[in-house]
Amino acid sequence: MINFSINKTAFLNNLRITKQAISSKVAIPTLSKIKIDVSTEGITLTGSNGQISIENFVAKEDENAGMLISQPGSILLEANFFESVVNNLPEITFDFQEIEQNQVVLTSGQSEITLKGLDVEMYPRIQEMATENPLKIKAGVLKEIFTETAFAVSTQESRPILTGVHLTLTDNKLLKSVATDSHRMSQRIITLDKLSEDFDLVLPNKSVNSFKSVFSDDDTELDIFFSSNQILIRNETISFYTRLVEGNYPDTNRLIPSEADYTLDLTFDVANLRHTMDRAKLLSNATTNGTVKLTISGDTITATVNSPEVGSVHEEITPLAKSGDDLTISFNPQYLIDALKVIKEPEVRIRFISAVRPFTLVPKSDTLDFVQLVTPVRTN
Amino acid sequence: MINFSINKTAFLNNLRITKQAISSKVAIPTLSKIKIDVSTEGITLTGSNGQISIENFVAKEDENAGMLISQPGSILLEANFFESVVNNLPEITFDFQEIEQNQVVLTSGQSEITLKGLDVEMYPRIQEMATENPLKIKAGVLKEIFTETAFAVSTQESRPILTGVHLTLTDNKLLKSVATDSHRMSQRIITLDKLSEDFDLVLPNKSVNSFKSVFSDDDTELDIFFSSNQILIRNETISFYTRLVEGNYPDTNRLIPSEADYTLDLTFDVANLRHTMDRAKLLSNATTNGTVKLTISGDTITATVNSPEVGSVHEEITPLAKSGDDLTISFNPQYLIDALKVIKEPEVRIRFISAVRPFTLVPKSDTLDFVQLVTPVRTN
Repeated sequence: MINFSINKTAFLNNLRITKQAISSKVAIPTLSKIKIDVSTEGITLTGSNGQISIENFVAKEDENAGMLISQPGSILLEANFFESVVNNLPEITFDFQEIEQNQVVLTSGQSEITLKGLDVEMYPRIQEMATENPLKIKAGVLKEIFTETAFAVSTQESRPILTGVHLTLTDNKLLKSVATDSHRMSQRIITLDKLSEDFDLVLPNKSVNSFKSVFSDDDTELDIFFSSNQILIRNETISFYTRLVEGNYPDTNRLIPSEADYTLDLTFDVANLRHTMDRAKLLSNATTNGTVKLTISGDTITATVNSPEVGSVHEEITPLAKSGDDLTISFNPQYLIDALKVIKEPEVRIRFISAVRPFTLVPKSDTLDFVQLVTPVRTN
Repeated sequence: MINFSINKTAFLNNLRITKQAISSKVAIPTLSKIKIDVSTEGITLTGSNGQISIENFVAKEDENAGMLISQPGSILLEANFFESVVNNLPEITFDFQEIEQNQVVLTSGQSEITLKGLDVEMYPRIQEMATENPLKIKAGVLKEIFTETAFAVSTQESRPILTGVHLTLTDNKLLKSVATDSHRMSQRIITLDKLSEDFDLVLPNKSVNSFKSVFSDDDTELDIFFSSNQILIRNETISFYTRLVEGNYPDTNRLIPSEADYTLDLTFDVANLRHTMDRAKLLSNATTNGTVKLTISGDTITATVNSPEVGSVHEEITPLAKSGDDLTISFNPQYLIDALKVIKEPEVRIRFISAVRPFTLVPKSDTLDFVQLVTPVRTN
C-alpha cells in the first residue's frame, strides 16, 4: 500500500517527461495509464505508446523532490487525469496514499482527492535490452544532427523506410544522420570522441522529435544501446526506448555529385536568400507546379514566379561570390527554405550541375561535414 | 492609378485592424478582399464579413506611416494574401503602384511583387447611418462591462436572442450590460458622465469580441451611433459597424431575488474558492450530472464530488464570513468558475435562498452595480 509525500512541482516536471510517451489515442486502453513504481530508493514513472517507452526515475535523494517514502508499491493511474489533478492541488507538497487495493488518496492542504487505479499486472512489459558497450554522446550533439537532417524525412507512408532518419556508425567513429523524401536530402556526419561498435538503423521521425523534447538538457551525457528492433537512450534518470523502422535504407551516398560535375558555384547570404524564397513561395503556392525560377545570367541572378491568376514576383539577388556558367533552374522554394533554416552559419555555398540535376548546399565555412541536396523541377 | 509609399510596419498594423472583420470562410467571395481607398488625405482600409464591417483611416499626417501619396484611387485585393506579401517585403518602406487597371506592383528593395485585384465597384456598400448625438464612452469602460457579462451568453442557436449581450440605456445615463444562457446570468450597470438618448439592443457576442480587439487602446474615446438594425462605434480613425441580433430580450430583472428572500450569506476569498472549484470540476466532468455538492453545516463548508468510476473530491472551505441557515446545494462548478473569473476584487459575497433557487454573487465591496446568478441542479 503505497505511501509517499513529494514536492508538487518536482513531481509534475517528472510526470510530464514520462507523459511524452503517453498518447490518449492508443488502441490499447492500458497505454493511456501511467505506471507508478515506488521503491525504497525512489519513484519510477513509466509511460508507453507501444512505439516509444519512457522510464523516469526520481531518486529519494533528489533535492527538488523533497521526497518522503513510507511504503513502497505500484499502481496504474489514468495519465492525463492524474496530471490535471496533481497540477490543481493547492499546496506545494502533497501526500500520495493507497487506501485500498488500487485506490489512492492525494491529500494537499484541505483537499482530499480519491483516484481509482488499476493493477500494474495489466501493464505491458518493456522489451529488455543488453546494456553493454554503450555509444556515449552528449544530448546536445545528437539533437543538433537530428535537427540538421530530420526535417527532410518523407511524410508519405507509401515508402515507410523514408519516414525515418538513417543513423549509422562506420569506422567505429563516424556517426552519420541522413534523411530524404526523394525530392531533397540532408546528410550530416560527425566524428565521435570515443570509438564504438558500428551500427546501421532507421529511427522513426516521431521518436526523433520525442527524444529531443525528453532530453531537454543539452549537456546531459547519454548512453545508447542497440538491438535488432529497438534502441535505448538513457542518462542517469531517464530511459528512452524506441522501436526502429524495419527495412533497408536506400544508398544515399550515390546521390551526392562528384566535385567535377559542378558547372556553377554560388555563395549567398543565408538570411537574404531565405527571405527571397519566402516571398517567392507566397506566389508559387498559387501556381500549378509550385516552383520558383532562378535565372543566372552573367552577373545577374533573378528569382521569378508567375501566377496567371494571382500575380508575380520578380527579384534580383546579389550573390556574395560566383563562378561558372549561366543557368536557368526551377524548384520548389519550400525545399530551399527548409534547407537554409538549418544552416546556422551566415553564408551558404550552392553548386549546380544542370537544370535537371540536383543542386547541393553546404555551409560556406565548410568545417562541418554537412551537405544538402535539392532536386529541381523540369518546367515548360 | 494609385501610387503611394508607406512604412511597412505602420501599414501592416492598420491592415491587421481592418482584417479582423474579414473572414476567409464567407459565402460571398468579394468579402475575402480588402478595399483600399487612397485619397489626397490618406488611405482607408475597409473589410467586412457581412455582420461586422471595419473602416480604418490612416491619415497622411500619421507620423508612423511616413506616407507619400502621388495618385489617389481604389482597388480590392485578396486580404490574407496581401497581408502575407506586405509582411514579407524586405525593406522598412514600400511603394504601391497601380500599373494597369486593377493590377498593382509592390516595390521594396530589390523585390517587385505584382498582384491582381478587382474593381471596387464589386464591393458591397456599408449601410449608412445618421451620425448625430453619439453616446460617448471610453473604450476601456465599455470593454470592462462586456468582459464582466458576455461570457454568460448562450452558445445554443435554439434561442438566438440569448447568444447576444443585452445593452440598454435608461434614464439617459444608466448603461446596463446583461447576458444569460438561462443557467446563469451576469449583469453590470454603470452610470455615464454625459446624458444620452435611451436605447435597447442586443449585440452578437462575436461583435463584442471583435470590438474588444479592434479598439486595443483603453483610453480612446468612442462615439456610438444606433439604428434599428446596426450600431457604429468609432474613434478618430476606426469605424466599427455591427449588425444587431433581432428580437426582444427576455426580462432579466425579475430573475434577481429580493433581499428578503436570502437565507444564507457567505463571503469567500475569490482565488481560494476558484481553485477548489477547479479541482471539483476535474471530477464532476466524470459524473453523470456534472455537479459539485456544497454542504454548509454549522461552521463547516464542504465541497464534494463523487464519481463511481474515476474517484472523488472532498474539500473543506473556510468562509471569510457567514450568517444564515444550513444548506446543501449542487451546481455545475464551471458556472461558479466563470463567475469568479470576472470578479477582480479579492472577496466575493454569495447569497443563497434554497437548494432549488438561483444563488447570487456580488463583489464584497459592493461599490459596483454588478450581480451574477447561478442556477443550482436538483439532484436525486
